[in-house]
Amino acid sequence: MITLTHGAGGTVMQELIKRKLLKALRHDETSGFEVPLEDLDDAAVVRGIVFTTDSYTVKPLFFPGGDIGSLAVAGTVNDISMMGGTPVALSLALMIEEGFAISDLERILQSVDSVASKAGVQIVTGDTKVVEHSALDGLLINTSGIGFRSPALEHNFEVASRLRPLMTKKWLLDSNIRAGDKIIVSGHIADHGMAIMSVREGYSFKTEIVSDVAPLNGLMRKALEIGGVVAAKDPTRGGVANLLNEWSEKSRVGIDISETEIPVRPQVGAALELLGIDPLVVGNEGKVVLAVIPEQANAVLEAIRSVPEGRDAAIIGEATSRHGVVAMRTVVGGSRVIPAPAGDPVPRIC
Amino acid sequence: MITLTHGAGGTVMQELIKRKLLKALRHDETSGFEVPLEDLDDAAVVRGIVFTTDSYTVKPLFFPGGDIGSLAVAGTVNDISMMGGTPVALSLALMIEEGFAISDLERILQSVDSVASKAGVQIVTGDTKVVEHSALDGLLINTSGIGFRSPALEHNFEVASRLRPLMTKKWLLDSNIRAGDKIIVSGHIADHGMAIMSVREGYSFKTEIVSDVAPLNGLMRKALEIGGVVAAKDPTRGGVANLLNEWSEKSRVGIDISETEIPVRPQVGAALELLGIDPLVVGNEGKVVLAVIPEQANAVLEAIRSVPEGRDAAIIGEATSRHGVVAMRTVVGGSRVIPAPAGDPVPRIC
Repeated sequence: MITLTHGAGGTVMQELIKRKLLKALRHDETSGFEVPLEDLDDAAVVRGIVFTTDSYTVKPLFFPGGDIGSLAVAGTVNDISMMGGTPVALSLALMIEEGFAISDLERILQSVDSVASKAGVQIVTGDTKVVEHSALDGLLINTSGIGFRSPALEHNFEVASRLRPLMTKKWLLDSNIRAGDKIIVSGHIADHGMAIMSVREGYSFKTEIVSDVAPLNGLMRKALEIGGVVAAKDPTRGGVANLLNEWSEKSRVGIDISETEIPVRPQVGAALELLGIDPLVVGNEGKVVLAVIPEQANAVLEAIRSVPEGRDAAIIGEATSRHGVVAMRTVVGGSRVIPAPAGDPVPRIC
Repeated sequence: MITLTHGAGGTVMQELIKRKLLKALRHDETSGFEVPLEDLDDAAVVRGIVFTTDSYTVKPLFFPGGDIGSLAVAGTVNDISMMGGTPVALSLALMIEEGFAISDLERILQSVDSVASKAGVQIVTGDTKVVEHSALDGLLINTSGIGFRSPALEHNFEVASRLRPLMTKKWLLDSNIRAGDKIIVSGHIADHGMAIMSVREGYSFKTEIVSDVAPLNGLMRKALEIGGVVAAKDPTRGGVANLLNEWSEKSRVGIDISETEIPVRPQVGAALELLGIDPLVVGNEGKVVLAVIPEQANAVLEAIRSVPEGRDAAIIGEATSRHGVVAMRTVVGGSRVIPAPAGDPVPRIC
């Protein structure tokens, strides 16, 4: 039986994908796929085209800071950007429950348009399906997207390879990281998951907790223009903890981070502490984690701090040679291992 | 409120798309989109890349002749093929209800793999979401796809333009048809819709009615290699009636067809007659309707009859100068107008 954890972005989902999906789908590795499905990276690259897909099942559809429409555009824009791609065109597939209010649909479409416009991408093709009442919980969206190699990627890899030999100069891959590379997070973590949780569970706070949903292609361009980035990934389902463990596994490195350096809004941190949830496993929708050649880390940090989405960016740690070990120096001075979560503790955050 | 008819592929859906979706989504028509969203063709073309998306909400998931997996691959392969594209890579996004049987998922993935392999395309990227029990009716799939210009398209248009001046030699568009062009359907119509209906409603027939779900890129290649095709479209939701009305509107022509020429399996025809449903409005998933320069119609017909999916192809009529009028000579010798259906009479056929 499929469980909620099978879709929660952690180790259980990875197992399902590796044991069932990848096994069932045969691949011809000779046919020009630069980033094969097996790598489970953020997007595929086919003959120079960066291609990705994501479905959005967020509940509720409207939340502080965004809605399913802004999420669907930002999420797919970000998956392409994380590879070093420039997103160009998106598809928009709507699956709607009979009885859904057209005014709500219009609000969602306005968000789609607004975020697409901000990110400089266009919706070029679409599909609309309607199912009978109760066969679906309101509305689901799938956006797929295509993009091309970012013009700044050549420069980025040139800078990086001057400082150390690179495994590849093709794309920003999860497998590119080497011991010593600095780990940067682009801002406060756990805002999105906490915003969803607070509105869904009806928690009330003095100040509203707002989702960080945002397209990050502009921020990524800034970082690549500085140069020295070797990997980038957005910490969505399963959060930063899942991301770092994926990197550790695919790059065959360890990663040490420092709790005092991780940006968490006090209110979000306090709420999660009350709930007993580690902010590292909570999903984000407008953040990126970068691995950068050490000599370039400060310059990249400064560059992404110059854009609003990266204002609170910080260097949180570095890769080590202890393959498979993701560890955190805690506030009190100890060290603890950060395991890959089985799944995100908050279902349906995206 | 959204109704089932808003997703049923007919005039009501077109209105929703034109009045709400297209209005909300701003477009920059200067940015290299060869087939804009406004055209509502089978796929978009962005810098030479044919790009399309479709969600699949078919009920039941397994039906005679196929399942949601075979449908999801064939449908997206066909949308790319209908433009004159060669499909290359597909995305596969699964939205699954908690409690879904993994063995059913495996069966569906095997169908995905089998049809993808038959069509010569690969699944290169994917996404898996799980929602709680009763938030979704089992499983939905979205497949998006990318393809490139078919190598035979140049030859096809060269042959066509030798016989009459063409509006465009770029792609097989709904707006390309001129009076005199022959209309070919690639085989028996209404099989898919009737197969879904019979299993869903529990009708029992002497012989099982089987869906026609099939990838048509091979058949399309055969037709283009002969040359003279100006438009192609698969009659899915809303069937041949909806397709011909779309063509009539976009190409500013009339279309006359002959009831005696339309291939309908006797059992399917009899069942639909009992139900009072016109086979022309029922959806198909393995058929194409072609508009062909008259001098080439017989040669194209012969070519597509040489592949299994086109064995029962027939010329069913031709375009006329009576803009907006789709009419059928009936078996008894009269003539009746074929209006665009409000929507497919069978919900959730795809």
